[in-house]
Amino acid sequence: MSDALEAARRLVPRLAARAAGYDRDGAFPVDDFADLRRTGLFGLMVPERLGGMGAGFAEYAAVAHELARGDGATALVFNMHASVTGALAGIPDQLIEALGVPESFLDARDRVLSAAAGGAWYAVAMSERGVGSRLSRMSTMYEVGDGTFRIKGSKTFVSGAGHADGYLVAARSAADPSLVSQFLVSAGTEGLTVESTWDALGMRATSSHDLHLDVTVPADALLGGVEGLALLVAQLMPHWMVASYAAVYVGVAQAAIDAAVAHLNDRGLADLPAARARIGRADAAVAAARLVVDEAARRVDAAPGEPETNRWVWRAKLLAGTTAADVAASMLEAAGTGASRRGHPLERLYRDARCGSLQPATSDVCADWLGVAALGGDPDADGVGSRW
Amino acid sequence: MSDALEAARRLVPRLAARAAGYDRDGAFPVDDFADLRRTGLFGLMVPERLGGMGAGFAEYAAVAHELARGDGATALVFNMHASVTGALAGIPDQLIEALGVPESFLDARDRVLSAAAGGAWYAVAMSERGVGSRLSRMSTMYEVGDGTFRIKGSKTFVSGAGHADGYLVAARSAADPSLVSQFLVSAGTEGLTVESTWDALGMRATSSHDLHLDVTVPADALLGGVEGLALLVAQLMPHWMVASYAAVYVGVAQAAIDAAVAHLNDRGLADLPAARARIGRADAAVAAARLVVDEAARRVDAAPGEPETNRWVWRAKLLAGTTAADVAASMLEAAGTGASRRGHPLERLYRDARCGSLQPATSDVCADWLGVAALGGDPDADGVGSRW
Amino acid sequence: MSDALEAARRLVPRLAARAAGYDRDGAFPVDDFADLRRTGLFGLMVPERLGGMGAGFAEYAAVAHELARGDGATALVFNMHASVTGALAGIPDQLIEALGVPESFLDARDRVLSAAAGGAWYAVAMSERGVGSRLSRMSTMYEVGDGTFRIKGSKTFVSGAGHADGYLVAARSAADPSLVSQFLVSAGTEGLTVESTWDALGMRATSSHDLHLDVTVPADALLGGVEGLALLVAQLMPHWMVASYAAVYVGVAQAAIDAAVAHLNDRGLADLPAARARIGRADAAVAAARLVVDEAARRVDAAPGEPETNRWVWRAKLLAGTTAADVAASMLEAAGTGASRRGHPLERLYRDARCGSLQPATSDVCADWLGVAALGGDPDADGVGSRW
Amino acid sequence: MSDALEAARRLVPRLAARAAGYDRDGAFPVDDFADLRRTGLFGLMVPERLGGMGAGFAEYAAVAHELARGDGATALVFNMHASVTGALAGIPDQLIEALGVPESFLDARDRVLSAAAGGAWYAVAMSERGVGSRLSRMSTMYEVGDGTFRIKGSKTFVSGAGHADGYLVAARSAADPSLVSQFLVSAGTEGLTVESTWDALGMRATSSHDLHLDVTVPADALLGGVEGLALLVAQLMPHWMVASYAAVYVGVAQAAIDAAVAHLNDRGLADLPAARARIGRADAAVAAARLVVDEAARRVDAAPGEPETNRWVWRAKLLAGTTAADVAASMLEAAGTGASRRGHPLERLYRDARCGSLQPATSDVCADWLGVAALGGDPDADGVGSRW
Repeated sequence: MSDALEAARRLVPRLAARAAGYDRDGAFPVDDFADLRRTGLFGLMVPERLGGMGAGFAEYAAVAHELARGDGATALVFNMHASVTGALAGIPDQLIEALGVPESFLDARDRVLSAAAGGAWYAVAMSERGVGSRLSRMSTMYEVGDGTFRIKGSKTFVSGAGHADGYLVAARSAADPSLVSQFLVSAGTEGLTVESTWDALGMRATSSHDLHLDVTVPADALLGGVEGLALLVAQLMPHWMVASYAAVYVGVAQAAIDAAVAHLNDRGLADLPAARARIGRADAAVAAARLVVDEAARRVDAAPGEPETNRWVWRAKLLAGTTAADVAASMLEAAGTGASRRGHPLERLYRDARCGSLQPATSDVCADWLGVAALGGDPDADGVGSRW
Repeated sequence: MSDALEAARRLVPRLAARAAGYDRDGAFPVDDFADLRRTGLFGLMVPERLGGMGAGFAEYAAVAHELARGDGATALVFNMHASVTGALAGIPDQLIEALGVPESFLDARDRVLSAAAGGAWYAVAMSERGVGSRLSRMSTMYEVGDGTFRIKGSKTFVSGAGHADGYLVAARSAADPSLVSQFLVSAGTEGLTVESTWDALGMRATSSHDLHLDVTVPADALLGGVEGLALLVAQLMPHWMVASYAAVYVGVAQAAIDAAVAHLNDRGLADLPAARARIGRADAAVAAARLVVDEAARRVDAAPGEPETNRWVWRAKLLAGTTAADVAASMLEAAGTGASRRGHPLERLYRDARCGSLQPATSDVCADWLGVAALGGDPDADGVGSRW
Repeated sequence: MSDALEAARRLVPRLAARAAGYDRDGAFPVDDFADLRRTGLFGLMVPERLGGMGAGFAEYAAVAHELARGDGATALVFNMHASVTGALAGIPDQLIEALGVPESFLDARDRVLSAAAGGAWYAVAMSERGVGSRLSRMSTMYEVGDGTFRIKGSKTFVSGAGHADGYLVAARSAADPSLVSQFLVSAGTEGLTVESTWDALGMRATSSHDLHLDVTVPADALLGGVEGLALLVAQLMPHWMVASYAAVYVGVAQAAIDAAVAHLNDRGLADLPAARARIGRADAAVAAARLVVDEAARRVDAAPGEPETNRWVWRAKLLAGTTAADVAASMLEAAGTGASRRGHPLERLYRDARCGSLQPATSDVCADWLGVAALGGDPDADGVGSRW
Repeated sequence: MSDALEAARRLVPRLAARAAGYDRDGAFPVDDFADLRRTGLFGLMVPERLGGMGAGFAEYAAVAHELARGDGATALVFNMHASVTGALAGIPDQLIEALGVPESFLDARDRVLSAAAGGAWYAVAMSERGVGSRLSRMSTMYEVGDGTFRIKGSKTFVSGAGHADGYLVAARSAADPSLVSQFLVSAGTEGLTVESTWDALGMRATSSHDLHLDVTVPADALLGGVEGLALLVAQLMPHWMVASYAAVYVGVAQAAIDAAVAHLNDRGLADLPAARARIGRADAAVAAARLVVDEAARRVDAAPGEPETNRWVWRAKLLAGTTAADVAASMLEAAGTGASRRGHPLERLYRDARCGSLQPATSDVCADWLGVAALGGDPDADGVGSRW
């Protein structure tokens, strides 16, 4: 087991002990994030030369799975940070050369990653109301100033809003709306306001609030150093985010089994045949989903963005989402009414688990893309809706 | 359509408009119950000669289904009152004669029913912690005093606790613990205290708190007028409660479809094939569950307690519970992330809908009993666990 | 119970005893049809004034369900005959007047129905290879001759081909291909040949072979007496066929439960919890599907062709198809390997049961239509594909 | 890719081309087995020092999966041979020493394995009617003669009966019925008769007939060289057989997807949303089941018989069986009625796929064992029924 994984595993009981409270209050898991900072896990994806742990995606998926056994919401916010740092760290050198990315970007990138190794963490501000995460339809715009960029707009579902040290913000050029760029906006920037809108069924502790921007940022806030390079990161990040959601939801599903086992053993009900059958089938389903997530993660490391990798990512997302929801519902039924009281872990896990299929790409969308691919088509061109 | 059903239908929008608030606060639906009193629905099951509406079970099931489309929690509390009054009103005269039930009971019963017609309503205090609803293991005991009974013990899952006008309390005789009797204890009785323990995943507005009793009640509080007649009502009530839960959960499932349809039409997403397919399958499943509930209700009216009636009751309970949970989960997936925000009806309905399978008899228990019966066995003797 | 239903019930053990043999050989159930003729059931839908039993659709559905408990394939062929005679008998008088249907048609219709009451039965020749049952794309054409029609083309899935006394054949006018007419072609007509193509997974005894036509028929073979009136019958028949398929598949599902119960009791395995749970859930599902079929049937009698009736028909078709397949698969699993030997009723029922969802309208199509309707759309206009 | 896997892959189209015929006739796949002999695959599990390919279980699972994509029945018979040779080859040297297994056994074992490398193959004769595969209740007995054993009894489900070169026969000692031994009985032995009883729903080409024994075999036919050592092999073989069934059924499930994809593309129906969704979900499910089988296989190689290995074997068996049945049923529904004609691969695959859950350990039993294990119990002691 890697150091990072071991560190994550040690945090599980601490996260689990606090999960009910953060969920009840819909409060950001401040203490969990202090723990993550303390253990150096913000540097998980940062190359060792910049002071980080130099993990690959597979190792990350294992860490995310473990954290989610403690608290799914904490794992989900951490996932966003890991996606940003992982995508930044993972840009291939050849691509940088080929695109003519300026040296200055490399410096900026390294500063961002070094800061993460030092304990900073980043949130993602991509989705907009009514637009979802489709970059092509977003209304947040930027204008080029004198060595600065001026960004105006509003984002939603910004997990960790109000707590992150910086935000990865996607915006379109006012001058040429076909150009989509991404900026790293520091938390302290004037004109950055958080509107508390997150009050949801599950994953309540993610503080996925709205973020309003009317900010001026320095030139080196532009990711890639060249406008229009949003795709540089954005094409890497989807695999990241989709596949890493998956790891989180498998962890949530496993936590639901663990909670049902504890509940049934506590009550001396372990010999109920129907409960045993439910747990047995859940055990197999979660084991399978976990292997698919691991396989997807391995492939994201080995061949990011390739069609076969994408298929594994969609499989992981689909199975993690559906398995988590089905397993949590069945475990609640195995445990009985007592487990539906607030404060019982299964009550929370049942709500958290339902969210996986709803996060983009939704289960229905993943099923469609996988079907198109199996039939020899091109999910980008033939799938339902445009992809992002 | 009967007057009662029409009255219920008119209440639906009022109940629906308040449902989010009561759910959020876990507060008793005081205004819904004022509406129910105003429309005379507390007298639904009371014979016309006593000023009631004289409804049968089938009509009740239709009313419960309708109320549940507005607010499942309100319908569930109302269900308890309807079960008490319906079971009392439904005791066959021959049975009363055969058992030698004293005249005084008939007077007491009529007083209870008249009060209901006049606007009083009753809650059920049967379950105990760690015992469930199995009468044979309950620890609430009573002693016979001088023209009184002294009852001591604690009940849980008392829907409507703190708001009902009276409680149907089951207790065992201290002198002969094999005797189980039921008492109607007025809300104002000294020594009756409500402990606020109800804070649950779903059906949050039922105020299903704990009730502690250390009370002295007059002789005519004893249901049936003779000790040990708990079964008189208790053997009628199960069908009542089980089958009427069922009507409520089918109503909740229908409400989930309605909410998803409204959501998709509002967002212009009605042409998504995956969403359409989800709604189509949900529509068929709910229509089927409703017919089974209606059939069970008809049979409870026609042949209460007969083996074939019981099978229909179990089918109704099983299908209502599983259908509600499956449908609400699928509707949430059809509608997407937006519907998982608190305050959105689907967010609440998803939680409410999960509770049906957990209420006794649970889905797994119903499946077992139905299997035993189909195989020619006797569910009472061969089924899992004792029944109540 | 009606006479017809009683007659059907008496046939069940006879049909069941022969089912394995006909299935094995893929042979037409000649003896079953002799039984049906003997009991007068070919006249089930024929008005009493013409010597028939004058049944409505609801009664028919009950008969079909019963026959299917004996042999699903026999019930399915019988269903085609009942659809033809039922649709003919059910044409409303006002419609006939409104359309100016000539008197001669009424005579022809009555002759057809009288013959059925006397022991003749009819098959349906509608589907074509690669076209399915969409009338608008069929390639069978007719030309008007001198007091005759000349019909040329090929049909597929003609259940009962080679054994029926007559075939209801749909064809398009060579002169005006937008006109679709239906003809009743006698079995003895020269130029009518059956090609034995039916050799399928399930419902093997239906002899649903191909029918090649190069025939000349008299003027009164034209249904309705006026060209282009195919829709007269065709718009009634879909409800007929779709809903009556449904009754058959619910019967098949019930037969699967019965077979599993007998198998488990024979082997002394009735106390296996997993088997009991499977049977209990199957029992509830089949009971529900049956009620939906009955409801659809009642509505086809009361308000044929109305939108709400159609929704019930689709619900019936969807639930019957999916329930039969799911239940038969689960019953085979409850019974174990022994039940997968050829000759065991469950082996056949498992194959028969799978066919329900595949017959038009398929389960996926029904789900889509139901979804469109629930969303307030028009399934005819907005549903997948054209309807027939 | 290993040589063996490549060889298997080359055989797939040959096996697939013959599958319909063998299935139709319920005939043993003679030509497939000639191909297997020719390619040396009978020596797959035989150590290289004895002329074999020296494969481990993981490699075997990959080969079995591949063969099953061609013909599930062929793969299933091959699986029995691989189980025998694999279990023999896999007996740890320490165990042999610890048990005091005589040198003569090692010679006998090596002769058996060498023969396999040379083109011989073995079937397994373990199950008995009414007893299943529980060794403790079998009625086949043996008596010790003068340098010989006399074996009498009857076996069922002997895949490959009448075609194998030898049979692994389990029997109990007449002198001490607690001793269960296994013998390798040559096909030519006098008193060995095959009764053609295999005529089943699926996997029809396995020739899993009954075998009657009234034979005398030489001393070195006793596996292990010492009586009562049946467990030596029998405790290894279950993992073998159970897990390798699993590989076969995942291959069958994949073949069903492939057939549906081909069918839909042939008909120009690849853009039906419902069909795409079915294929997408099937793709994910099969990919997951495959990973679980691979993981189980790796663990059988690394730590055979350990509790955690057994859990993976049960997961593999459970998921392979349920996935194959569900996927084949869904693919048939995606493809439509045309695919239910005999001769269409999906018609056969639908029947073959159903058999996986029924083969011991059944899906319900695996679920129970997994549940017991997850709850901290001992499946051997607490699970349903005795294990084998």
